[in-house]
Amino acid sequence: MTESNPPSSYEAAGVSIERGDEATGLMRASVEATHGPQVVPNPGGFAGLYALSGLREPVLASTIDGVGTKVLVAGAVGRYDSLGADIVNHCANDVLATGATPLVFLDYVASGRLDPAVVAGVVRGAAEACRPLGISLVGGETAEMPGLYAGGDLDIVGACVGACERGDVVTGEGVEVGDVVIGLPSSGLHTNGYTLARKVVEDAGLSYASVPEGWVETVGEAYLEPHRAYVREVSALRRSVRVRGMAHVTGGGLPGNLPRALGGRGARLYEGSWEEPAVFGLIRALGKVSEDEMRRVFNLGVGFCVVVESGDAEEAMAVLRDAGSGARRIGEVVGDGGVEFVPGG
Amino acid sequence: MTESNPPSSYEAAGVSIERGDEATGLMRASVEATHGPQVVPNPGGFAGLYALSGLREPVLASTIDGVGTKVLVAGAVGRYDSLGADIVNHCANDVLATGATPLVFLDYVASGRLDPAVVAGVVRGAAEACRPLGISLVGGETAEMPGLYAGGDLDIVGACVGACERGDVVTGEGVEVGDVVIGLPSSGLHTNGYTLARKVVEDAGLSYASVPEGWVETVGEAYLEPHRAYVREVSALRRSVRVRGMAHVTGGGLPGNLPRALGGRGARLYEGSWEEPAVFGLIRALGKVSEDEMRRVFNLGVGFCVVVESGDAEEAMAVLRDAGSGARRIGEVVGDGGVEFVPGG
Repeated sequence: MTESNPPSSYEAAGVSIERGDEATGLMRASVEATHGPQVVPNPGGFAGLYALSGLREPVLASTIDGVGTKVLVAGAVGRYDSLGADIVNHCANDVLATGATPLVFLDYVASGRLDPAVVAGVVRGAAEACRPLGISLVGGETAEMPGLYAGGDLDIVGACVGACERGDVVTGEGVEVGDVVIGLPSSGLHTNGYTLARKVVEDAGLSYASVPEGWVETVGEAYLEPHRAYVREVSALRRSVRVRGMAHVTGGGLPGNLPRALGGRGARLYEGSWEEPAVFGLIRALGKVSEDEMRRVFNLGVGFCVVVESGDAEEAMAVLRDAGSGARRIGEVVGDGGVEFVPGG
Repeated sequence: MTESNPPSSYEAAGVSIERGDEATGLMRASVEATHGPQVVPNPGGFAGLYALSGLREPVLASTIDGVGTKVLVAGAVGRYDSLGADIVNHCANDVLATGATPLVFLDYVASGRLDPAVVAGVVRGAAEACRPLGISLVGGETAEMPGLYAGGDLDIVGACVGACERGDVVTGEGVEVGDVVIGLPSSGLHTNGYTLARKVVEDAGLSYASVPEGWVETVGEAYLEPHRAYVREVSALRRSVRVRGMAHVTGGGLPGNLPRALGGRGARLYEGSWEEPAVFGLIRALGKVSEDEMRRVFNLGVGFCVVVESGDAEEAMAVLRDAGSGARRIGEVVGDGGVEFVPGG
């Protein structure tokens, strides 16, 4: 085992990523490219520093999450690069859903046997996902732990911290019956439901390299489609319309997540009011998965929901349309808790 | 696979921790006990909210880290509870070393097959470690990932966010030749060097249940001794003395970490000027490990260093003594980079 002097604020536990390595050089350049003037220089520092400014009553929003068994799909396909964007976008959306603006991100990559090029690819992907969202990648950790992780398998974890004015926090408290639920399209599975999604493909003996009839991409490409971030469109929306509730649709699907945005109320969603990516139809058909289970495991095409007063819905839709978000009115708030699916749309 | 409606702000990916379970009930009570008035209530929220107050020019300090293969020792001994304190204290010290006060913590626990009692024990331990440090445990994630982790093995990751005034950031920039290095005692291995520490025990055929001659505890107990936090004593010190540099001694030992606190300068450390816990002597003797390797892998008894101007050293030592810290003057700053060990002390 080699313990090394951690390079810059990028710590290495039990393993050194070669500084001279080309992939690592690109990684480092990508990470530094996320550092705006608010990152306080702290070479070799023990934590990443970020100057918070412009807030009178700042509230911090913090989250930690992993990409789950999507890493096993990446391993089967042999392409890990997109997992960096997955974890950044997943964490950023969680922060966003509280009303805060995501500001800093930290990554943790662990493996039984670290391949420096793979790790560098993941971190570079994370940095490249941070940049358009205005997020600074201020720290990370890589851990090589033989005996804990099998072979070359990885776990990828991220933490994101954001902030907003106390008065801009959105908890769903002001949501009222009759409010409109707007859905923002997902890019596919995002980072949830991979235990079932993988089982269905494996049970059917389908290769990740195969291209289903009528598709232009492989199953592996569809499964690895990165988690989409909603920071840009939701920030645009909040500049002109008051948003009463927001939900990031992750594990638990719409029934598990939308109620978290409704302050104790429920929602009626119109079946067919949004487009379902083809990957869900494949899983449903291959695995003969019940509609109820599909809804509880997958986002089914809606990655993020915003709830607005019905009188604001038209303006909200116009702003979201201008932002190229692909937003749809997908339902309305009702008095009872839970989510009900009804025909129409 | 079951995806569940995430309970409170405690998210579960791919697994539900039974809400009615006794261990989980205790976990939840412990987590809530860390929530002071600055935690903004957000039941079911997608990120933990914390109101930052009293800072004119706030700088956030963020870090992410894991407990590494200390989990494998915990698995061998069958006692995971102390790992929660390990990850909290490790992360809190990293934040502390930048000059910031640790404020919020988030945990991530992943396993191939989650044992709810084990996970609840880890989280409860984390919460109980947060409380005396004034840290709020505002979120966490548990992930069950069969196929990625072997059997009941766990990975435990934590993220900590702190803050301070911009002017209170400590980067080592003001460190000068002749400054005094004060060492604060570690409790043992903390969370680094376990690959070597485990190898030595395994190669020697030693059981974690055995009690070495002259010891009152087992090898397993010594190996699992929790990482010590230095928040209380360092905060007391900073109220009365200007601290020029701080280092958390983790992977890389004193040679790898102390220079990170010295703004490009080096240090001369006096051998024997601090006490070395017995666990290091055991590892050195059993594994015939060279002194050079011992120093590069382990903290050898110094878990945290503070650097002060020589004229402030006496007052600093007095404050640290009053805080019951066990501080020792262990060396001085020299012009050349790196760490040199010299006889004396």
